[in-house]
Amino acid sequence: MYDQLRSVSIVGIGQIPVQKENPRSLREMGAKVLHLAMEDAGVDSVDALFVGNMLADELQGQKHVATLIAGAAGLRGIEALHVRAATATGAAALRMAYFAVASGEARLAVALGVEKMSSGNATHALAKALDAETETSTGATLLSQNARLMQLYMDTYGVPVDVFNNFSLVAHQNARTNPNALFKNKHVTVAMIRASRVIIPPLRLFDASPLCDGAAAVILTRSGEARAYTHQPVKILSSSVATDWLRIDDRPNPLHLYAAERSAREAFRKANVHRTDLNLFEVHDAFSIMSCMGLEAVGFAKSGAGWRLATENQIGLRGTIPVSTFGGLKARGHPIGATALYQTCEIIQQLMGKAGANQVPDAQLAMLLSIGGAGSTALTHIFGV
Amino acid sequence: MYDQLRSVSIVGIGQIPVQKENPRSLREMGAKVLHLAMEDAGVDSVDALFVGNMLADELQGQKHVATLIAGAAGLRGIEALHVRAATATGAAALRMAYFAVASGEARLAVALGVEKMSSGNATHALAKALDAETETSTGATLLSQNARLMQLYMDTYGVPVDVFNNFSLVAHQNARTNPNALFKNKHVTVAMIRASRVIIPPLRLFDASPLCDGAAAVILTRSGEARAYTHQPVKILSSSVATDWLRIDDRPNPLHLYAAERSAREAFRKANVHRTDLNLFEVHDAFSIMSCMGLEAVGFAKSGAGWRLATENQIGLRGTIPVSTFGGLKARGHPIGATALYQTCEIIQQLMGKAGANQVPDAQLAMLLSIGGAGSTALTHIFGV
Repeated sequence: MYDQLRSVSIVGIGQIPVQKENPRSLREMGAKVLHLAMEDAGVDSVDALFVGNMLADELQGQKHVATLIAGAAGLRGIEALHVRAATATGAAALRMAYFAVASGEARLAVALGVEKMSSGNATHALAKALDAETETSTGATLLSQNARLMQLYMDTYGVPVDVFNNFSLVAHQNARTNPNALFKNKHVTVAMIRASRVIIPPLRLFDASPLCDGAAAVILTRSGEARAYTHQPVKILSSSVATDWLRIDDRPNPLHLYAAERSAREAFRKANVHRTDLNLFEVHDAFSIMSCMGLEAVGFAKSGAGWRLATENQIGLRGTIPVSTFGGLKARGHPIGATALYQTCEIIQQLMGKAGANQVPDAQLAMLLSIGGAGSTALTHIFGV
Repeated sequence: MYDQLRSVSIVGIGQIPVQKENPRSLREMGAKVLHLAMEDAGVDSVDALFVGNMLADELQGQKHVATLIAGAAGLRGIEALHVRAATATGAAALRMAYFAVASGEARLAVALGVEKMSSGNATHALAKALDAETETSTGATLLSQNARLMQLYMDTYGVPVDVFNNFSLVAHQNARTNPNALFKNKHVTVAMIRASRVIIPPLRLFDASPLCDGAAAVILTRSGEARAYTHQPVKILSSSVATDWLRIDDRPNPLHLYAAERSAREAFRKANVHRTDLNLFEVHDAFSIMSCMGLEAVGFAKSGAGWRLATENQIGLRGTIPVSTFGGLKARGHPIGATALYQTCEIIQQLMGKAGANQVPDAQLAMLLSIGGAGSTALTHIFGV
């Protein structure tokens, strides 16, 4: 049904350290990673900029973020558009840049994500990813919905909360050697996870990703011209989006991430690769339960068994399916609109063999899964060298 | 530099009447026009939905609008993403759907716009299209910035406010026979325009477009397959975006719409047509001054002479360059995210020869110009049969 007309590759990346509060403004953070990515690709301009940002409406009083950042970077005139998919917003920017190059409309397109959550009430604004009429109106937030799913999972499959510990542990282990991670200096133990504050039962502090500031960007071009910009281009082998009912209670089985399963299946088909070919999987570990359900949806484990990959140490850098290889959303940080672009930068580092202490051995094929809201939107991208 | 790989056509349209306050919810309005467009194209599903919406964050407490509307329409599973470009948001949705089809990623893609401005403080939320740090922080709104531009224009070129009257008059004349226009029953005279309340000097009530609710959608597919859905497909001959400095005071000449000029020039080049070939031009008449400056930027008049096209009656349905042929933003209404999709529906009606009393004789080539903010983003689309 689909056919890709033109192969697309990534030829430059830019990221700044995730911080609790970055002293730079939103526009300065965006311009900084745009310049870093342009420097990495060795170009002094681009054709198009697609910006992922979810919260600037409320937190910075700013709706025109793409044009704002194009201007802050000094790129008067270029195409600049803003794209969103709730908490999967960064991946939506990546897909738009992919569209722009694959369609022939742009030769050099940037996908950029930026989020500044340190000002205003980010938790309140984040809740707008849910259904305003039937969920947030009854007090639900992304935290409370994920706590509900976690409890439902524990009840349905008869497992204790401790089966989720290693998702957080592995993320924090990997973050320690990532200079861009929010928790790069934090040594986390299982005892700390078990003793951590319960936010909404059964969800503990270490089961959730932190509020933070961050920005990251990647530059895309036609694969046939990629070597003009880098010796090691990485191909985007496929890009796919699917959705589910927005309201959790409308879903036949809230523990099945239908959108994730559907978008991943499409992504495998378009890339013509199999799940078992993947060397690493950047999962959407905004919450421990999402890592677990994400692994199940993609097929790495049966329903109710995703946690076993964590307890059996299969998700570490040398495991059968490494996840969150630079710390993931939990420990690198989850500056919403920027998150999938950080993950893309990290995948590029992995596939170029430049991941240093975080290197997955012989990484050649990687997948990125981004989740919008409590599972209602999913974007899957597969990358290869 | 660019090359279009695959021709894209529109094969279905859906619109509902613009109202001061639509009793339907945002999701219901969106689902309604999606179903109307699908019915028009004779399809019972689509691959991808791109939604333009600017204000639901504040006015409906809803950030996940694309997935919300896909679900409300019963289309569980399809791709759904949200795209924005401030007040040009509807055109950004059109460009994304164009990308999706041109890249081969979707066979049937919908561009849908929806806005519900009847609840909350729309004027405050709209101001976020400006620079939060240097414009809105000093009290500027879209109204005040357009009043500034209007005054600057009058001072620079030595013309009185009455030179703008006919932009509003023509829009209202055309709206009277458009069943979807907000002011379809309003008979407006020059005397009424001259006597209308001054909002911010010199800008009068009739120089501004109204706050309103509305939704519209179009379905795109590959031109080669378009006749499977309609006997009269309309081609999107080109799509183009350009930006300018966000802050008006940073621009060398605030009266020159650089982004509009640049995006239109690109659109003419890509479509391989000349301005004088156009049979009609849907201009962004959110304010009279924007119509005037838009006509100048595209080349229909020299700088300082755009108003002459209005005073000399060249912009009517039988003029040399008809604008706002179904009432424009001023009299059909300007439900922000939906506006460019209403304009696209109207262009399709014109090019199919189905515009009824609003028909431009022998219309074969039309252009749509959408402006984001006070001129900082511009999208141009050219359509032909």
